[in-house]
Amino acid sequence: MNTKMIRYILAKMLGVEAALLLLPAFVGVLYKESSAICFLIPSVILLVIYMAGGRKKPENATIYGKEGMVVVASAWILWSLFGALPFQLSGSIPNYIDAFFETVSGFTTTGSSILRDVEVLPQCMHFWRSFTHWVGGMGVLVFVMVLTSLDKKNSMYLIRAEVPGPEKDKLVPKTMSTARILYGMYFGLTVIEVILLVLGGMNLFDSLIHSFGTAGTGGFSNYADSVGHFNSAYIDGVITIFMILFGVNFNLYFFLLLKDWKPVWKNEELRAYLGIIVAAIIIITVNTVGQYANLLESFRYAAFQVGTIITTTGYATTDYNVWPMLSQCILIVLMIIGACASSTGGGVKVSRFMIVVKSIKREIKQMVHPKSVNLIRINGKKLGTDTVRNVFVYLMAYAGIAGVSVLIVSINNYDFATTFSSVIATLNNIGPGIGAVGPKGNFADFSPLSKLVFCFDMLAGRLEIFPFLMLFTATSWRKKF
Amino acid sequence: MNTKMIRYILAKMLGVEAALLLLPAFVGVLYKESSAICFLIPSVILLVIYMAGGRKKPENATIYGKEGMVVVASAWILWSLFGALPFQLSGSIPNYIDAFFETVSGFTTTGSSILRDVEVLPQCMHFWRSFTHWVGGMGVLVFVMVLTSLDKKNSMYLIRAEVPGPEKDKLVPKTMSTARILYGMYFGLTVIEVILLVLGGMNLFDSLIHSFGTAGTGGFSNYADSVGHFNSAYIDGVITIFMILFGVNFNLYFFLLLKDWKPVWKNEELRAYLGIIVAAIIIITVNTVGQYANLLESFRYAAFQVGTIITTTGYATTDYNVWPMLSQCILIVLMIIGACASSTGGGVKVSRFMIVVKSIKREIKQMVHPKSVNLIRINGKKLGTDTVRNVFVYLMAYAGIAGVSVLIVSINNYDFATTFSSVIATLNNIGPGIGAVGPKGNFADFSPLSKLVFCFDMLAGRLEIFPFLMLFTATSWRKKF
Repeated sequence: MNTKMIRYILAKMLGVEAALLLLPAFVGVLYKESSAICFLIPSVILLVIYMAGGRKKPENATIYGKEGMVVVASAWILWSLFGALPFQLSGSIPNYIDAFFETVSGFTTTGSSILRDVEVLPQCMHFWRSFTHWVGGMGVLVFVMVLTSLDKKNSMYLIRAEVPGPEKDKLVPKTMSTARILYGMYFGLTVIEVILLVLGGMNLFDSLIHSFGTAGTGGFSNYADSVGHFNSAYIDGVITIFMILFGVNFNLYFFLLLKDWKPVWKNEELRAYLGIIVAAIIIITVNTVGQYANLLESFRYAAFQVGTIITTTGYATTDYNVWPMLSQCILIVLMIIGACASSTGGGVKVSRFMIVVKSIKREIKQMVHPKSVNLIRINGKKLGTDTVRNVFVYLMAYAGIAGVSVLIVSINNYDFATTFSSVIATLNNIGPGIGAVGPKGNFADFSPLSKLVFCFDMLAGRLEIFPFLMLFTATSWRKKF
Repeated sequence: MNTKMIRYILAKMLGVEAALLLLPAFVGVLYKESSAICFLIPSVILLVIYMAGGRKKPENATIYGKEGMVVVASAWILWSLFGALPFQLSGSIPNYIDAFFETVSGFTTTGSSILRDVEVLPQCMHFWRSFTHWVGGMGVLVFVMVLTSLDKKNSMYLIRAEVPGPEKDKLVPKTMSTARILYGMYFGLTVIEVILLVLGGMNLFDSLIHSFGTAGTGGFSNYADSVGHFNSAYIDGVITIFMILFGVNFNLYFFLLLKDWKPVWKNEELRAYLGIIVAAIIIITVNTVGQYANLLESFRYAAFQVGTIITTTGYATTDYNVWPMLSQCILIVLMIIGACASSTGGGVKVSRFMIVVKSIKREIKQMVHPKSVNLIRINGKKLGTDTVRNVFVYLMAYAGIAGVSVLIVSINNYDFATTFSSVIATLNNIGPGIGAVGPKGNFADFSPLSKLVFCFDMLAGRLEIFPFLMLFTATSWRKKF
């Protein structure tokens, strides 16, 4: 373990957060809010840490996969720990565990909130809260690397540990330049959404807040009724479409940029993703039609809720707690499926489910013809056994974390729907669940222990478990390895 | 596919069911019940089928794994289809789908019931209902083979498809003679339980009914309050201990018979199974103490409910629906874990969970040291990659079936706890769930479609999915393979 290099990268990362905190401070000054000062204090602390440890690169700058994972897991925890300070210092969220929960929920693009009344926050706090979504969406490390050209040589190990999806070697940008292009598109799509929302009559501030939340598939809103506040079919439509767009594998946009249509058209994950969305919208539209004025209106609400849940964004335009159980269960299934690999969305990812379905098919074929050789192919390419095994182990670890979390959260003695869905909503980085944590509820009343479990789940979910498990076993390394 | 041989084995099996039906008929005669005649009618039909197809062995008697699976899956469906007739003919369960549900629930040792008032059934119907548990416990095919020496040569393929557990080649009896010894122990343990219950003041009929249900880990009782009816700490204790005994891998009893203690003492699955039971009992005892007179009483109810749920029996002595959510969630986790491999219990099985936990540990080790070779060992023996892959695929198929089932059952529009736990309770062959299908509830009010889904789940759960999936894909074989 190259601990010197780990410390150096982390210090450098905290320096970037020091700079980021100036942005909401600036917003606070614009709106003449006294709490702007609360961003400057942590910013100065972070600057000192950077000056102490982030300026001189260690002689041995080589890191490998394990260091990459430890850096990424530590970076997310540290950014959240310091990012929570403005909320507490300003008194917006007096309890530090609550502030930490809110910040983890922001960076991991979850969107679960412990705020009982979100609308009383100062504008600068709203800005910081939603901006964490935007930064966390593409990954805090990728963000830092794009800004600072940190460690070109070892960037692969860092990107691998942070970018979601089962097949990192092939799909992820191989060089810093492609990473920059991807970030450019992310920025560009966000700007287009802001413009479209402003054209729909939203003010610039609200447009920024909601575009940050859409781009990062986060879901924080500055209104208690979330996007439902605007009560506009146009705004619902724009956000629905952009949520679905941000749930697509970003590498496909790269192909589009190169005007290479074939890999996009033939992409099996994209087809499955869109197929699931269409099927879910149709069933829910029909299933909920009795609760709305007409089929068009139930379609509008079905489409928005399907988009917000499968992409794990977490905005809401209606309280789906009053929907029939079939529609609610479809949403829970979508929560678990999640978006595409290498998108900003969370969840298990569509491609992992495709690998699972294909593995089951292969197993049955193998039983019929024990001597035949059956390979699993995605987009025509065969998958290595390592990738398949890794997907399985990931899913098992995922189920295990969910099970243990449900047990701990059940101590709060809420009903089963709340207990189960609060874990699913945080582990998949969605935001709201069903029951007491539904779109009209919040996470305020859980015990501090449960809130820490949710923080663990949000981070483990965003980093796809292994970097996080690795950090937690790191203490036993020195002895065992 | 050797369809002739498949037809021959199935006809022979139905002949055995013809004989089995005489037993409840005899009970009916003893109790002077007119419905005894309703067992003779299907018995005659089955005899005719046997005479037509089960007497002359085809020239080519060779079968392989795939035929074994198709035979096993078909046999369970056919036995249930015919075994349901007495319930319908006698008017005890007028609706055939309900009668089929009850019979599948019996043979698969699930114990879920559609009966609103179980106590009005004639004694002969009670006997048949509980006897299906006893026969289904060790497997209907194993039962037939032990009785008739059917196909010594090919018995392995049939046993493999029916006996539960991840590692069939090593654990399962290799010859008919060991199968007979295992069945002898099954019979012996049942007799001991009957004697102990009679000594506790239960009448012989009730003792038989409840011993059948314990041995098969089924759970049908002839009383609405299940074992709670007797309100006796002694009877609770006897049944608790026997439920846990029947959840143990039967091969270990074989070692005990040979006075070979070491493999029993060192068996990792047994240790984990007992460890989980002790931990669950302790937590639930403490968690529910407020609801009972004292710690001893809460221990009595905790121990019984933990025993009944982890072994997937499904008896009840208290309504755990009123327990705190933590205790309920522990029961749900136990439902999924299930008993040991090669026991009569259902669920995913403890050994599969051990393989999963060890795989996750190995994956993390592999990430730290990519070039190291880490093998998974159970009881000191290393597991083949095929076994591990098969466990993963099984678990994924299990989760997939659970997910699809929840969606279909959610159309009934019950609450989430009922919807979710009814699927878990049937797929894991437990019996009761939580909510409306809790120990005081039943499955009567679900739609016919949902009942058929539950039947599918019970059969798929009992046969550990693959034989069943294979049968359903069998129609596509002729084309594709």
